[in-house]
Amino acid sequence: MSPNRIAARYWIESAFPLAQAAEVLAGEQSSGTFVRVPGETEELRERAGARVESIRELDESPTPSLPGAGAPPGAPPVYRRAEISVTWPVENLGPSLPNLMATVAGNLFELKQFSGLKLLDMTLPDDFRQAYPGPAFAVAGTRRLAGVERLPLIGTIIKPSIGMNPRETAAMVEQLTAGGIDFIKDDELQSDGPYCPFAARVHAVMDVLNRHADRTGKKVMFAFNLTGEVDQMRLRHDQVLAAGGTCVMVSVNGAGLAGVSALRRHSQLPIHGHRNGWGMFDRSPAIGMSYRAYQKFWRVAGVDHLHVNGLRNKFCESDESVIASARECLTPMFPPPGPDFTILPVFSSGQTAAQAADTFRALGSADLIFACGGGIMGHPDGIGAGVAAVRQAWEKALAG
Amino acid sequence: MSPNRIAARYWIESAFPLAQAAEVLAGEQSSGTFVRVPGETEELRERAGARVESIRELDESPTPSLPGAGAPPGAPPVYRRAEISVTWPVENLGPSLPNLMATVAGNLFELKQFSGLKLLDMTLPDDFRQAYPGPAFAVAGTRRLAGVERLPLIGTIIKPSIGMNPRETAAMVEQLTAGGIDFIKDDELQSDGPYCPFAARVHAVMDVLNRHADRTGKKVMFAFNLTGEVDQMRLRHDQVLAAGGTCVMVSVNGAGLAGVSALRRHSQLPIHGHRNGWGMFDRSPAIGMSYRAYQKFWRVAGVDHLHVNGLRNKFCESDESVIASARECLTPMFPPPGPDFTILPVFSSGQTAAQAADTFRALGSADLIFACGGGIMGHPDGIGAGVAAVRQAWEKALAG
Repeated sequence: MSPNRIAARYWIESAFPLAQAAEVLAGEQSSGTFVRVPGETEELRERAGARVESIRELDESPTPSLPGAGAPPGAPPVYRRAEISVTWPVENLGPSLPNLMATVAGNLFELKQFSGLKLLDMTLPDDFRQAYPGPAFAVAGTRRLAGVERLPLIGTIIKPSIGMNPRETAAMVEQLTAGGIDFIKDDELQSDGPYCPFAARVHAVMDVLNRHADRTGKKVMFAFNLTGEVDQMRLRHDQVLAAGGTCVMVSVNGAGLAGVSALRRHSQLPIHGHRNGWGMFDRSPAIGMSYRAYQKFWRVAGVDHLHVNGLRNKFCESDESVIASARECLTPMFPPPGPDFTILPVFSSGQTAAQAADTFRALGSADLIFACGGGIMGHPDGIGAGVAAVRQAWEKALAG
Repeated sequence: MSPNRIAARYWIESAFPLAQAAEVLAGEQSSGTFVRVPGETEELRERAGARVESIRELDESPTPSLPGAGAPPGAPPVYRRAEISVTWPVENLGPSLPNLMATVAGNLFELKQFSGLKLLDMTLPDDFRQAYPGPAFAVAGTRRLAGVERLPLIGTIIKPSIGMNPRETAAMVEQLTAGGIDFIKDDELQSDGPYCPFAARVHAVMDVLNRHADRTGKKVMFAFNLTGEVDQMRLRHDQVLAAGGTCVMVSVNGAGLAGVSALRRHSQLPIHGHRNGWGMFDRSPAIGMSYRAYQKFWRVAGVDHLHVNGLRNKFCESDESVIASARECLTPMFPPPGPDFTILPVFSSGQTAAQAADTFRALGSADLIFACGGGIMGHPDGIGAGVAAVRQAWEKALAG
């Protein structure tokens, strides 16, 4: 592949000849349209057209995965599946994430040629690394700020997710810090509601964390959920920074690419990316976007952490998928020299000491945030014992 | 429903008792979690908990629509479908679109209780109307700027979508304006690529449109695709405004809620919302978000126009779905007094004079943009004849 082309890999399902369906996709997403238009010269197609680079046939099905697809006239249709690779000249759009979305994940999902279409992966030319600052803290910067060298950041999520006021939240943070925790995050439902205003929560929580740091030298990292409009997010970031906080959190799907990117360009703190709503993109095998493609958008936009669920989680995601997602976060997007845009995967949902060894074995790395809820808060001997149990389990895992 | 609650309606599919599955959803998206946590008092649940308001059972299936779902132990599972309504106190989040997304369309898509889950609709309390400016131009403002009183705005899309430079684009605009067109838009693939830079395109195109306006008194509306990062969008908006342009266009999924909202708060021009990527949300009946729910996010964010495809379009969307979508755009989101956030639906994809009468009959309104590509550009007697044919067809449709 030419180094200045954008590449995307798709799973497709079509009743039409696969090469023909793939060409329609490439045309619709570049210089073509349903009919050949006068201005579409050979020179223009050569310069701006998307190219189908490969088609690898898979299985077939007598029924379509999604409604609305067409089929050629004649015999009863057979729906063939394939993985295809398509490339675009980066000059069509320039290195722009919002326009990348329109190009690789735009109108193509509605094409009649397809009874299933999923974006599996994409490879971006170096132009994107030049145009975007990418993750500022990532693994090393987060470890430095949290004061955690080898083990995962042992963390938890404030629960109940929503409904506590700033004072009650701070009281819970007091217990957690006393218990020796490294990392705490707001729930994704808690940003700046009138019952728990952001500024008051930052004030109350940071008072606890700063006093704890003064006593012990350890600044527990708290990811304050600042999700909101662009100006709100910038202001809230400044409030966290001024109060001595070390992390902000954003719901990436709610803020969107331009929102997260605007936050990144303003931020002096690690950005904890929450992927709530990800299931809408990746839960169906027949439509949407795989985590592999999804997380690349957010890494370029500049998040430092991104959620991946955890082993034996309470959601519908398989362990294989969780580990594959975490590996993706730790896999360079760009070759040396220069930043590789790796980030820290966040394990959560039903995590306890029991998953530590399996997680380390499967991932082969301790570069992660390990967020336990009930595993720490529900420990029979209290929060301190819960944190100690999880940390010990990770110590043992790393020791083999 | 209480006036200060957010309501959402979902299609669900579950092997678990429906009431139980619905309660899990309500809990996960508010004060609950997988286990009852100490701080979740009755008072807190009463104040912050989401409520299942209704469950209407539909059909059932022996197989799950999506993989990954659980089932109760015992007999082979049956997957029951239902429409449910869930409400939240607006105090949980405040009137914030990015946080609304996390609340009504967040982690719930991954819950093991569901083998299918789609957000069908939502109703927002007046707080959102107070917090967001909403569409600034909508139907009346767009008609005023375009100088079109009764008929739809007859429009087209620059084709080839991508690959022409500013000079070539302006030459095409020259032909279209000479042909008497009301509205032209960039393709969603064309924003600010190095081959057709935004500023140069605005300069070249507005030179044509301004000269045409000087001669004829008619300022053709051109929707310049300014999709990009927040600061880029603001700058590009200012370039369009300074050059005398009357519309900007944004790919809403690429920019995201905070991005579109930031553009709206800066903008002095109608915002043409392009929904490319919408198929990812709505094409599957088993996962995602219906257009009815989807368009409400973007109306509150402040777009003035939003795409709906068109009758007998070249994509996979049915005519019923197209008309229902267009009706949604024209249906008030809030009761009087105050702005109702209605917007102008944009018909496109395979539109010609042949669809005018059917569109008017089905929609019962001419408040729309009618964007024809081949129907105008491919007319055997030239562009002027193509525009005239479409306009005449609409005149006849309105005359009955």
